Amino acid sequence: MVRVGIVGGTGYTGVELLRLLALHKKVEVSVVTSRNDAGKRVDEVYPSLRGFIDTVFSAPEVERLSDCDAVFFATPNGTAMLMAEQLMARGVKVIDLSADFRLKDPKQWEKWYGMEHACPDLIEQAVYGLPEVNREAIKNANLIACPGCYPTAVQLGFLPLIEQGLVEVDRLVADVKSGVSGAGRKAQLTTLMSEAGESFKAYAANGHRHLPEVIQGLERIAKRSVGLTFVPHLIPMIRGIHATLYAPLLEDGEAVQALYEQRYINEPFVDVLPYGSHPDTRNVRGGNVCQIAVHQPQGERMLVVLSVIDNLVKGASGQALQNMNLMFGFDEAEGLRIPALYP
Amino acid sequence: MVRVGIVGGTGYTGVELLRLLALHKKVEVSVVTSRNDAGKRVDEVYPSLRGFIDTVFSAPEVERLSDCDAVFFATPNGTAMLMAEQLMARGVKVIDLSADFRLKDPKQWEKWYGMEHACPDLIEQAVYGLPEVNREAIKNANLIACPGCYPTAVQLGFLPLIEQGLVEVDRLVADVKSGVSGAGRKAQLTTLMSEAGESFKAYAANGHRHLPEVIQGLERIAKRSVGLTFVPHLIPMIRGIHATLYAPLLEDGEAVQALYEQRYINEPFVDVLPYGSHPDTRNVRGGNVCQIAVHQPQGERMLVVLSVIDNLVKGASGQALQNMNLMFGFDEAEGLRIPALYP
Amino acid sequence: MVRVGIVGGTGYTGVELLRLLALHKKVEVSVVTSRNDAGKRVDEVYPSLRGFIDTVFSAPEVERLSDCDAVFFATPNGTAMLMAEQLMARGVKVIDLSADFRLKDPKQWEKWYGMEHACPDLIEQAVYGLPEVNREAIKNANLIACPGCYPTAVQLGFLPLIEQGLVEVDRLVADVKSGVSGAGRKAQLTTLMSEAGESFKAYAANGHRHLPEVIQGLERIAKRSVGLTFVPHLIPMIRGIHATLYAPLLEDGEAVQALYEQRYINEPFVDVLPYGSHPDTRNVRGGNVCQIAVHQPQGERMLVVLSVIDNLVKGASGQALQNMNLMFGFDEAEGLRIPALYP
Amino acid sequence: MVRVGIVGGTGYTGVELLRLLALHKKVEVSVVTSRNDAGKRVDEVYPSLRGFIDTVFSAPEVERLSDCDAVFFATPNGTAMLMAEQLMARGVKVIDLSADFRLKDPKQWEKWYGMEHACPDLIEQAVYGLPEVNREAIKNANLIACPGCYPTAVQLGFLPLIEQGLVEVDRLVADVKSGVSGAGRKAQLTTLMSEAGESFKAYAANGHRHLPEVIQGLERIAKRSVGLTFVPHLIPMIRGIHATLYAPLLEDGEAVQALYEQRYINEPFVDVLPYGSHPDTRNVRGGNVCQIAVHQPQGERMLVVLSVIDNLVKGASGQALQNMNLMFGFDEAEGLRIPALYP
Repeated sequence: MVRVGIVGGTGYTGVELLRLLALHKKVEVSVVTSRNDAGKRVDEVYPSLRGFIDTVFSAPEVERLSDCDAVFFATPNGTAMLMAEQLMARGVKVIDLSADFRLKDPKQWEKWYGMEHACPDLIEQAVYGLPEVNREAIKNANLIACPGCYPTAVQLGFLPLIEQGLVEVDRLVADVKSGVSGAGRKAQLTTLMSEAGESFKAYAANGHRHLPEVIQGLERIAKRSVGLTFVPHLIPMIRGIHATLYAPLLEDGEAVQALYEQRYINEPFVDVLPYGSHPDTRNVRGGNVCQIAVHQPQGERMLVVLSVIDNLVKGASGQALQNMNLMFGFDEAEGLRIPALYP
Repeated sequence: MVRVGIVGGTGYTGVELLRLLALHKKVEVSVVTSRNDAGKRVDEVYPSLRGFIDTVFSAPEVERLSDCDAVFFATPNGTAMLMAEQLMARGVKVIDLSADFRLKDPKQWEKWYGMEHACPDLIEQAVYGLPEVNREAIKNANLIACPGCYPTAVQLGFLPLIEQGLVEVDRLVADVKSGVSGAGRKAQLTTLMSEAGESFKAYAANGHRHLPEVIQGLERIAKRSVGLTFVPHLIPMIRGIHATLYAPLLEDGEAVQALYEQRYINEPFVDVLPYGSHPDTRNVRGGNVCQIAVHQPQGERMLVVLSVIDNLVKGASGQALQNMNLMFGFDEAEGLRIPALYP
Repeated sequence: MVRVGIVGGTGYTGVELLRLLALHKKVEVSVVTSRNDAGKRVDEVYPSLRGFIDTVFSAPEVERLSDCDAVFFATPNGTAMLMAEQLMARGVKVIDLSADFRLKDPKQWEKWYGMEHACPDLIEQAVYGLPEVNREAIKNANLIACPGCYPTAVQLGFLPLIEQGLVEVDRLVADVKSGVSGAGRKAQLTTLMSEAGESFKAYAANGHRHLPEVIQGLERIAKRSVGLTFVPHLIPMIRGIHATLYAPLLEDGEAVQALYEQRYINEPFVDVLPYGSHPDTRNVRGGNVCQIAVHQPQGERMLVVLSVIDNLVKGASGQALQNMNLMFGFDEAEGLRIPALYP
Repeated sequence: MVRVGIVGGTGYTGVELLRLLALHKKVEVSVVTSRNDAGKRVDEVYPSLRGFIDTVFSAPEVERLSDCDAVFFATPNGTAMLMAEQLMARGVKVIDLSADFRLKDPKQWEKWYGMEHACPDLIEQAVYGLPEVNREAIKNANLIACPGCYPTAVQLGFLPLIEQGLVEVDRLVADVKSGVSGAGRKAQLTTLMSEAGESFKAYAANGHRHLPEVIQGLERIAKRSVGLTFVPHLIPMIRGIHATLYAPLLEDGEAVQALYEQRYINEPFVDVLPYGSHPDTRNVRGGNVCQIAVHQPQGERMLVVLSVIDNLVKGASGQALQNMNLMFGFDEAEGLRIPALYP
């Protein structure tokens, strides 16, 4: 059994990791940390886990975490970068669900995240944990930077088009929408049910932290600069991301559906729907899958790609576990074969 | 007192008209029709109206409706066109909330609405009831084609840019989202709460009936052909439309905020928010207003306009009443000065 | 025009007062206080009020509030009791929406509210603002203790039975449910949409602060001690309270429907539905009405009364305004003739 | 591998069975019927099952179903009784999720369900599938009548009290609340999101079909007649039932918590929370568990029991699978060890 630790076990990505790991046959959760809830049983804070986990929250200490084979950081930004180096020095593999190691340029990271990076030297070692792009590198990595939720949906949606050079990469639009769990489990006005329920709005239209991450990912594929307009919105629901992507075709789009099907034919967690489908976030809720559909409305040059994930699963904890499976040579889908919860 | 009739009083736009007319000082609701509920008191079907209306539903008959000064059609498409001519011949002004008279080209109408038009000759007389564009014509009209809900939000959002020729009109994108009340009050699987709740999806991405209406409206202003990609989505909430509009600027966008403020300075029901705001559908819920905000993300050429309305008010019944006020020479805002219901 | 002030204008009852006062013909809102938002325009914080109010938030100071004819306290518990005496000394009528003056016994108040009462001497002067019980006293009052939201729905539901001595008053059950806006507008985990949405639970089953208030009200009518089991629940929605009341009949219940209709026949804001109806909170959302229905399931001795209100209107701000209308000799319904927002 | 068939595979309990069976190691789903969707792939109708099931819907025919070892009826009431006898004659075990075999008295069944019973002789053979009461009988049964959703939550909540004779069984109250998926997947007005969303109401207060089922179950335990007032309500959410139970104690209630813990100590799917807890439906969403908490408010004689389940799992398909596991000698929890989906 692989022994894993979870730092930040009281956030939504932490508890989601626990839900998934409860079904994983080769993993034992040995440490779950929480500064505020140290000493409490995990299932006292999360009664949904009663019967599935016996652990008690402990304070986040390197010493205790060093016994683990792998440690997940399900923490706010700025925490993993403080502990990753020490853990790695002791042979622990680090899987970071936060943003600390996503951007390759520390200057850009500091600009978007508003703090100094504590270990810029480690950034280069970090492998960006999008298996559909980096599978081989992930297998050998000691430090994984798991992609953000929006970047997962957007990159998987644009990927085949950009790899094949079919679209004008300087005029891309990503109109993205997320359920409120993406904002995390913290007391704040804006995600109160009275504020976020029964309403819909855009936010951070002038620049969201996931924008440079998406652009970095797309540019690596395009091998040229990419122009992307990226507008996030808040959906009055809990789980789910829907990315509506607009890409002007350079030539006619006849083979696009086949291209997507071919590109993802061997991917266990990317599911290309029949041409003209409308993927629904409910169909991926709780599951580790990205469902994608392609449209070419009225046969015009503007291609529309619809890409949905559960922000907490394929957009966070499920993808982190998929990375762990790859890192430890397990079946990539171990613990992740879970049908979505419908209705 | 102006005597009005409502045909189709059991749909959401019908009951919303009744809510608004209950507060109108110069109108008496004398006839409310419903084929299915004829004979029942209106407030038996709609207990929210107890104490506000004494009327009994009657069958939809021209004879009875002819006593009215104005008749609203809050019916499914295809009904108003069967009765409008007779009513107008008897001096009744007709305000149609359905799509029957929105498209000027009957061939196009028949293509999108899948039925033969019953009175194509009347189409030309119909005035498109968007007061911000057609106020003077509305005042003298006998037949009003009220705009669709999406077309209201989208046209008001693009209008100033297109009037001034500031954007590439062949590369517009409207990513639009609507609450489920837009689908009407009829038994169907797709808008069951178990189906539409806690989920988000696009629909009709390949062509929605509101697309030709928006294009017709924009082309009239642009005086040239317009290329628009229009993708509607269903939001898991009841009321509200959020249009996220993408328009490539032809030159830099410095004066855009001032342009919007200037364009709508005298409009009682279009409210331009400060630059960079994020309008929230909750702030217009129940009110007759369109709130608009402009963004130019990262100073790039792609302008983003956010435009929100309540689909049942400014997107339907409120706008219909605004039209009626204009037609009868009342204060345009009579019965419509209602703050939105927050939270 | 009566000049009114609102202390605590940034909570939900405060902004709801502003919505209602915007339509009131005899009132001018001259002061709105907020410690945190002092200096900001009210409509900057609440864009739903754009066009309806020009006021700027000010700090809560007795001096400034003394110019008002009446001051509403839409504050957390413990604030009104600090300022009421000074304001009343300067001739200002005080209408308190918080709990400070609801309980007649200061010892009991201190037990349930966990703080010392700052002006116990004033409690006796305070009139409990339930017009259906205390209308005449309200007209002459200078200090009103507006009822809590649950107590309004529960008392109006039980009132006729207890006045007539028809039920076993020592074995009453009130199973009450509230939307999340009842928890107020403050950053906290439990009312995050991710926590409160798509879920249902009881809370404070062992004793909610509204319990002693309800018992005090019922005992005053019963003129004997009352035994009530009171279990509140949180509904995954924003506005609305549904009280399901169980009362064992002392004799058969044949005349109960007539009793309710008779009791409330002249009440402008209590609406008795036909026997066996199921009132729906949506039908009172945004309106100042309590809708009540009576059931006697299977003809057994246990009577069931269903009572619904909008917690922010008849359960708070609407009732406060109803009280103000009575205090100033206005039409009791002025500013409150607003149909509920359906759907 | 046990071969199972599902009749009525397009309702919510049908698709939920498929979700659960996808994870079951000893079962192969060989037939899924649907009159309307015969010929379509199951995962075309339910994209949430893509990758988990290859089956095509077939018409419901006894011949084809006879190859199965067990057949689940996830049908509306009145269907299972038409086919059960033929299937059983061919050696197929029948597990009925509908109400056809729940009531032992066919006359009462006909009164509450409004149709004639097609095979009253079979009723006696049917074992009521509540494992916590009937485990041994279930193991040997050929026909299982799975309990209704409300009856599951209510009976498990009252059970220990009634077994021990601790409460006045003629004065019980069950105030029960359900998410809208309990109403099934059929086109109807009342469960449209615009009707059921953001609102709360009681329904069938004068007599719900689950009432005689609960009374039959409780009377079997009490060995005397039981008086129960049972009021169901509709919660604006999709999954979950919350039963709030009121039972007057005959003596003091000190040992009640220990009684519950003892009664359910060996039950894999009944989880007694610490005294005074408030179980939340979110913590059982998607899981097969009933979480129960006991309260004795203010130490009074009225005991309050809170009992929550997911209506589609422990209230329907999960419990059906639990029954199947018992019937075939499998581990009772096979396929049912699934943590709830939180948030």
